[in-house]
Amino acid sequence: MPDLLDPLAGAGDADALLGGTAWLHACVRFEVQLVHALASQQLVSAESAAAAEGLLHARLDVAAIADAGRAGGNPVIPLVKRLGALADAASDGTSGDLHVGATSQDVLDSAAMIVAGQVIAQVGRDLATLVRLLARLAELHRGTPMAGRTLGQHASPVTFGLVVSGWLGGILAARARLLAVGDSLPVQYGGAVGSRAILRDTIAQRRPDADAEPIVAAVLRSLADGLGLRDSAPWQSNRMPIVELGSALAGVVGAIGSMAADIAVLSRTEIAEVAERLAAGEGGSSAMPHKRNPVTSVLLVSAARRSPALVATLFDALVTEDQRSSGAWHSEWQTLRELERLAIEASATAAALAERLEVDAARMRSNVETTDGLIYSERVTAILAESIGKTDAFELVEAAARESVQTSRPLQVVMAGRLANHDDVLRSRVLAAFDPDNGLESAGVIVDSVVARAKDLA
Amino acid sequence: MPDLLDPLAGAGDADALLGGTAWLHACVRFEVQLVHALASQQLVSAESAAAAEGLLHARLDVAAIADAGRAGGNPVIPLVKRLGALADAASDGTSGDLHVGATSQDVLDSAAMIVAGQVIAQVGRDLATLVRLLARLAELHRGTPMAGRTLGQHASPVTFGLVVSGWLGGILAARARLLAVGDSLPVQYGGAVGSRAILRDTIAQRRPDADAEPIVAAVLRSLADGLGLRDSAPWQSNRMPIVELGSALAGVVGAIGSMAADIAVLSRTEIAEVAERLAAGEGGSSAMPHKRNPVTSVLLVSAARRSPALVATLFDALVTEDQRSSGAWHSEWQTLRELERLAIEASATAAALAERLEVDAARMRSNVETTDGLIYSERVTAILAESIGKTDAFELVEAAARESVQTSRPLQVVMAGRLANHDDVLRSRVLAAFDPDNGLESAGVIVDSVVARAKDLA
Amino acid sequence: MPDLLDPLAGAGDADALLGGTAWLHACVRFEVQLVHALASQQLVSAESAAAAEGLLHARLDVAAIADAGRAGGNPVIPLVKRLGALADAASDGTSGDLHVGATSQDVLDSAAMIVAGQVIAQVGRDLATLVRLLARLAELHRGTPMAGRTLGQHASPVTFGLVVSGWLGGILAARARLLAVGDSLPVQYGGAVGSRAILRDTIAQRRPDADAEPIVAAVLRSLADGLGLRDSAPWQSNRMPIVELGSALAGVVGAIGSMAADIAVLSRTEIAEVAERLAAGEGGSSAMPHKRNPVTSVLLVSAARRSPALVATLFDALVTEDQRSSGAWHSEWQTLRELERLAIEASATAAALAERLEVDAARMRSNVETTDGLIYSERVTAILAESIGKTDAFELVEAAARESVQTSRPLQVVMAGRLANHDDVLRSRVLAAFDPDNGLESAGVIVDSVVARAKDLA
Amino acid sequence: MPDLLDPLAGAGDADALLGGTAWLHACVRFEVQLVHALASQQLVSAESAAAAEGLLHARLDVAAIADAGRAGGNPVIPLVKRLGALADAASDGTSGDLHVGATSQDVLDSAAMIVAGQVIAQVGRDLATLVRLLARLAELHRGTPMAGRTLGQHASPVTFGLVVSGWLGGILAARARLLAVGDSLPVQYGGAVGSRAILRDTIAQRRPDADAEPIVAAVLRSLADGLGLRDSAPWQSNRMPIVELGSALAGVVGAIGSMAADIAVLSRTEIAEVAERLAAGEGGSSAMPHKRNPVTSVLLVSAARRSPALVATLFDALVTEDQRSSGAWHSEWQTLRELERLAIEASATAAALAERLEVDAARMRSNVETTDGLIYSERVTAILAESIGKTDAFELVEAAARESVQTSRPLQVVMAGRLANHDDVLRSRVLAAFDPDNGLESAGVIVDSVVARAKDLA
Repeated sequence: MPDLLDPLAGAGDADALLGGTAWLHACVRFEVQLVHALASQQLVSAESAAAAEGLLHARLDVAAIADAGRAGGNPVIPLVKRLGALADAASDGTSGDLHVGATSQDVLDSAAMIVAGQVIAQVGRDLATLVRLLARLAELHRGTPMAGRTLGQHASPVTFGLVVSGWLGGILAARARLLAVGDSLPVQYGGAVGSRAILRDTIAQRRPDADAEPIVAAVLRSLADGLGLRDSAPWQSNRMPIVELGSALAGVVGAIGSMAADIAVLSRTEIAEVAERLAAGEGGSSAMPHKRNPVTSVLLVSAARRSPALVATLFDALVTEDQRSSGAWHSEWQTLRELERLAIEASATAAALAERLEVDAARMRSNVETTDGLIYSERVTAILAESIGKTDAFELVEAAARESVQTSRPLQVVMAGRLANHDDVLRSRVLAAFDPDNGLESAGVIVDSVVARAKDLA
Repeated sequence: MPDLLDPLAGAGDADALLGGTAWLHACVRFEVQLVHALASQQLVSAESAAAAEGLLHARLDVAAIADAGRAGGNPVIPLVKRLGALADAASDGTSGDLHVGATSQDVLDSAAMIVAGQVIAQVGRDLATLVRLLARLAELHRGTPMAGRTLGQHASPVTFGLVVSGWLGGILAARARLLAVGDSLPVQYGGAVGSRAILRDTIAQRRPDADAEPIVAAVLRSLADGLGLRDSAPWQSNRMPIVELGSALAGVVGAIGSMAADIAVLSRTEIAEVAERLAAGEGGSSAMPHKRNPVTSVLLVSAARRSPALVATLFDALVTEDQRSSGAWHSEWQTLRELERLAIEASATAAALAERLEVDAARMRSNVETTDGLIYSERVTAILAESIGKTDAFELVEAAARESVQTSRPLQVVMAGRLANHDDVLRSRVLAAFDPDNGLESAGVIVDSVVARAKDLA
Repeated sequence: MPDLLDPLAGAGDADALLGGTAWLHACVRFEVQLVHALASQQLVSAESAAAAEGLLHARLDVAAIADAGRAGGNPVIPLVKRLGALADAASDGTSGDLHVGATSQDVLDSAAMIVAGQVIAQVGRDLATLVRLLARLAELHRGTPMAGRTLGQHASPVTFGLVVSGWLGGILAARARLLAVGDSLPVQYGGAVGSRAILRDTIAQRRPDADAEPIVAAVLRSLADGLGLRDSAPWQSNRMPIVELGSALAGVVGAIGSMAADIAVLSRTEIAEVAERLAAGEGGSSAMPHKRNPVTSVLLVSAARRSPALVATLFDALVTEDQRSSGAWHSEWQTLRELERLAIEASATAAALAERLEVDAARMRSNVETTDGLIYSERVTAILAESIGKTDAFELVEAAARESVQTSRPLQVVMAGRLANHDDVLRSRVLAAFDPDNGLESAGVIVDSVVARAKDLA
Repeated sequence: MPDLLDPLAGAGDADALLGGTAWLHACVRFEVQLVHALASQQLVSAESAAAAEGLLHARLDVAAIADAGRAGGNPVIPLVKRLGALADAASDGTSGDLHVGATSQDVLDSAAMIVAGQVIAQVGRDLATLVRLLARLAELHRGTPMAGRTLGQHASPVTFGLVVSGWLGGILAARARLLAVGDSLPVQYGGAVGSRAILRDTIAQRRPDADAEPIVAAVLRSLADGLGLRDSAPWQSNRMPIVELGSALAGVVGAIGSMAADIAVLSRTEIAEVAERLAAGEGGSSAMPHKRNPVTSVLLVSAARRSPALVATLFDALVTEDQRSSGAWHSEWQTLRELERLAIEASATAAALAERLEVDAARMRSNVETTDGLIYSERVTAILAESIGKTDAFELVEAAARESVQTSRPLQVVMAGRLANHDDVLRSRVLAAFDPDNGLESAGVIVDSVVARAKDLA
């Protein structure tokens, strides 16, 4: 749904993944799979399993359940009631086989993991697209010289491919972490206080002659497997899964934000090395007809500025007390959802941005010369140092740089003068360093290594 | 709208104050008032002013405008276009008198202040109700003794009135700060870069013979006054108004959260001094029929755990560059909105909670005796110190307390024994200190002073 | 003390204001003033008051007290013990008149306010210097044209004076808020649970015939006045004073950070409109002899990036339970101290930076022309709109801007062509708009108003 | 060094791991290992390697280097200068072989990883101790019944072993994540802009006939291996390693905080199920001789309340621009250090706390009965449901619970009455459920599984 104050809304269709319907469906999936898991151990009848299966397709009134959920502080009580009515309507008496040994937190935590799994799958796909596009961009510009900048100042030449590799490195790391978390999302099933006592009681009553523990274990496994989650001890008051998930999501948003911040800088009017290709009407202004704003980058930066604080709220919720905490747990819900929204929107948007990034290689090359050669000082010093020692080389180049600025003469010219009395080989070696195409071989090798990792994804 | 993951949703009707319609209406109010301000200085015609006035009642398709706003990163461009079409339809040619000298940020920032003003008004009212209820509660329990606790341990007796006064003190301070911020919300009007050049140009063209600056000032004043805002220099890159607003909102949520955290503790099964009066179905559990959870308090704590991080995002957005920043500004929008939502929901909910807080004065009194008299040790020591000196008194009571615990005899009994050789006056004075009703006069005076401040509101 | 990882360390001498010695001295001041306050009401003897007075000059072993303080979780217990020994050494038996009716939290909270008062005084002074320097800079460059930038793109011309006024506006607001908080720092004095019961008991014993409450009030007033603090109800579990203080400090750091972020951008090699004047060795690099980094701005930005999260921790600590909370209170200590450190270092450093900011007005002017006239599009449109209507004007200039970019011809030239058939007055008016010195009068008036506020400080 | 405002200071000897000396030594290790790496490829002489080796034992004046480092914004420039002088003093001319191809950020980032590796090693050891102690505690209390609590209310019985397993689960997860991060700490070595151009140049000059890339790779590997770090592409503007490290550290502090919060609650006067064993003078109060505060738990909670915001600052620093960012990088330094300090102090302190945790199993058992049987309602309902269906069972028990509260009769008694007409088997089965020792077998199995994981560490 478009949101007046979230221009990224719609990207990646976050509403479909995170809305009330999606959450409710995840809750239903938990309840249904629990019945199947119980049925697999002959703890409930085939009729119950069939009735439960039908619940997956039930129409549920999300708003009504949300509304009814206020009284208890969560929507599970009215949901279970509604599901029970539907189950009984399908096959009388089957409602009693729903929600066996479960508590609200089991349902909501497991649903959170189901939703997270779907979010991660989609974000992972969008990031794969992004990675593919960036890898292509890095290869294309493997040898495109541009000014490397530190603290905003020209430092030494790099290639645009190296810059893109830097973005790629962050995004690959963030994606790897997110997928690792996604591979290990735990199911929650412990009953009111995480003891699994009711499940055990149920086994004792329905299969009095069986050894209970293997059955408990089998139910757990079936429940987890059916939901694509990891079997786990109850974690109602061990919220590490939530902070690991939240950290991984924020890593994605941040890694994208880092790329976007760089694009916004390189798009600056005075730099103009890259630009977002804008369709008609994009990036405009209500006051200035000429404006072509890097609006997508700006919005991605904005997303990355919002996610850190959300992560903090999740870490804060690690500090829980009791077998269900009095506020910490509840503070996770909207926070995690918002982080997921940002990750979905950012990854979908970033992939689109990478597709329409315009690179002005000529401008990059000409910007390298902005400082009249000062940008080569690191290299020049290193070459000189081989002959005259490091300290002398540094001082010589420092003085020459000062002279170059004060006299507005290129550093190459000043150096030629200062090296007049040195031998020709050294002088020509030094002067040859003033070439943006020289000295970037190692950058290319770094690009290759990162690109190779990117291609391993495909 | 009920939200599956926000059981507080609906309280205070936050959607009405913060939804797309409300925001869009605030934007329209800015545009309309700007026309009126210009008209007041004969810079636009009466027809334009009339056409603009009509816009206040226009039906606007929020979703369509939000959707169209993505391209530019904010909804103002399509909004102004739509308003222009409506104005021209009402009176041809009047669209040109809309949005004069304004830029998107002028509209959105001013709208944010208009929305904030309405939020503050409502939160202020709900807090006034809360304050009134708490003041009554404090008065009622001015002399109700209960255990004062520090670090979770019984410390010295207090009264429940004093505890409530502590809540009240925080809420009064938070409310005062919020209202102070509300009284000083600034209008934003500076044009694309905050120079007001276009307004000045317009004056130069439309009233070439007039002295421009007084007219600029008059337009500003009329704009600000008409919107109930404060005249101000442009603040596109001075975001102090946003952090002051955000801090004040978070102060409200936190002060309420502090009360709620106390209620949750005092509701603990073993303490049971207060309880939320629950209607049928409230505070229940999906697994435990006996459960009566302090669910409102828990949700208020949860809100208070979420707001600090949101404030951090706003402070982070102080660090802006340029005449409009590349991401910081955009990160404020949803963040401020969420803080406002929390403040609205928390204040409305807290007022309702105060109304249905049950206080068990008998239980409070009996809990005072949980430690068999240890809770009186501070007082006993102080009384003893008058006779035997502070250090000796502290050591004597410390030893007696140890003995009391080890022998399971009340401290009063132990003390009686240890003071057997002291004079009767001292002994009887010490033993008289073991009475929860003694020594609470000064607490009552504190209650009176806080309650007096509370009543000043009315 | 220099800190390897804090290059701002030393600025403003934060250690002197915030170190163990300063904190301990503030604690001692509380204890001594409490004795004086009691003496003023004949509750302790003149000897006790004299002995207490001597404690102000006592040599205290900070490390030993800190070490001994671990056992109880705070340093007050060993401090009071040590002070008692010193008092008795000065005048036997006077130790009993120390710490009367007080608890650890009274001492630490009041000391925090005393320390804060000193911090605010110094930060206020440094900000006054900064404000004075910025006001001078704004006046000096009241009419210096430069490119106004939004989202990193040239937007419309501004003056450097207007940009500086923006910084100044933020800093003035932050300073005003900080001083307002400083004028209202509350004393804490309530005893173990905030009831003031022990003080009342003491009065009852030592002045049995007197009306106790006026004496309680007089002690409070004397205590607060003597410490330069505000009389207040106990606030152990109402932490609004802490969040108001923390927010104000972070406002200062952020407002400075906003200035610094702008300076860092304007220092970029390609922009080069301002520069930090560097002494020999400043702003250098270990690898690049030519480097002149805006290192002070960068460090100020870094400070501003750290403070938001610290504020969040303080807001989080609003949610307290009991009469002293189990962790929230303790989390304030280092957090507030670090915020104070950042505010001290940032304000002292910023004042120094403003003094050595080099402004290249010629470069500013030439940068305005980077876009070959596109930067004037807002103005040109506004002028045209007077004749041909807003929509047509916007579309005409939009098309002209596109043509200008595509053909690499200045917008002025393109416009001249496109307006060939319009009347001469309009055309010449439009073409005259392509002058950075025109249209900045209103910016000058904004500068004047902000500078006037700045001068009111002096 | 004891710190007045950090009672945890000293635990784990954080100063030794994080102080200026430790950091400087880590920087020196990087520089020395770089020389060794170069020597391994015949790029520098054996003399240089020998001279470098000597630097590891050099006395460096930390304060002087920190002081000199302010001018450049970091301490590397003066450090390299000083190391050069020492190297030349040892063997003339060898200074030129120091810092080859390196930049300040290479040194500081690599040093950060070296320091982190040492921190992780120690924290890992302390956590292993903690895990061992908690595993023993969980086993010991595998069958000790206690009240399970949700939202502060008695819910269903658990065992204390299960509660401890919950703590253990969090701590095991946090430790595993921290160690995984520790196994993958990357070296940083890229030169001024991360291109490795200077290293490549150096090879070209010193080994002109060799194939350069294998040598670059070999130097990298030797550098990384020698420092115990992972070979990596430069990551100056890809800060994922920092957020992964910071998240892992905060996970540790939070998991410990969760245990501590539980201990603080269970230590409450009214609950009194656990207590910190206090030595003389520990946990006392300056006003109340009887006080025995759970001060260690409180301080651990306090640490856990501080770490989330620090993590947020690190995530915020993901958003970098350029080849070295203008403030984000610098904001990591003290933030990461403080997180490391908290993790060191918390893990050392928690291990000590676990050793001196007193458990009152009798009190736990008696507290189970606080609600006169309501705590068994979940089980009773489940048993009843087998016979009369879930809905009827829930309603029956709900009504009985209400009656029990209103009549102050035990739920067991009320149920006996209400089940009078039901068959004996059911009734006796239901009434047997009112036994804390029944129904906890599954909890024991969960304990076993967590304990087994804990023992795998040893």
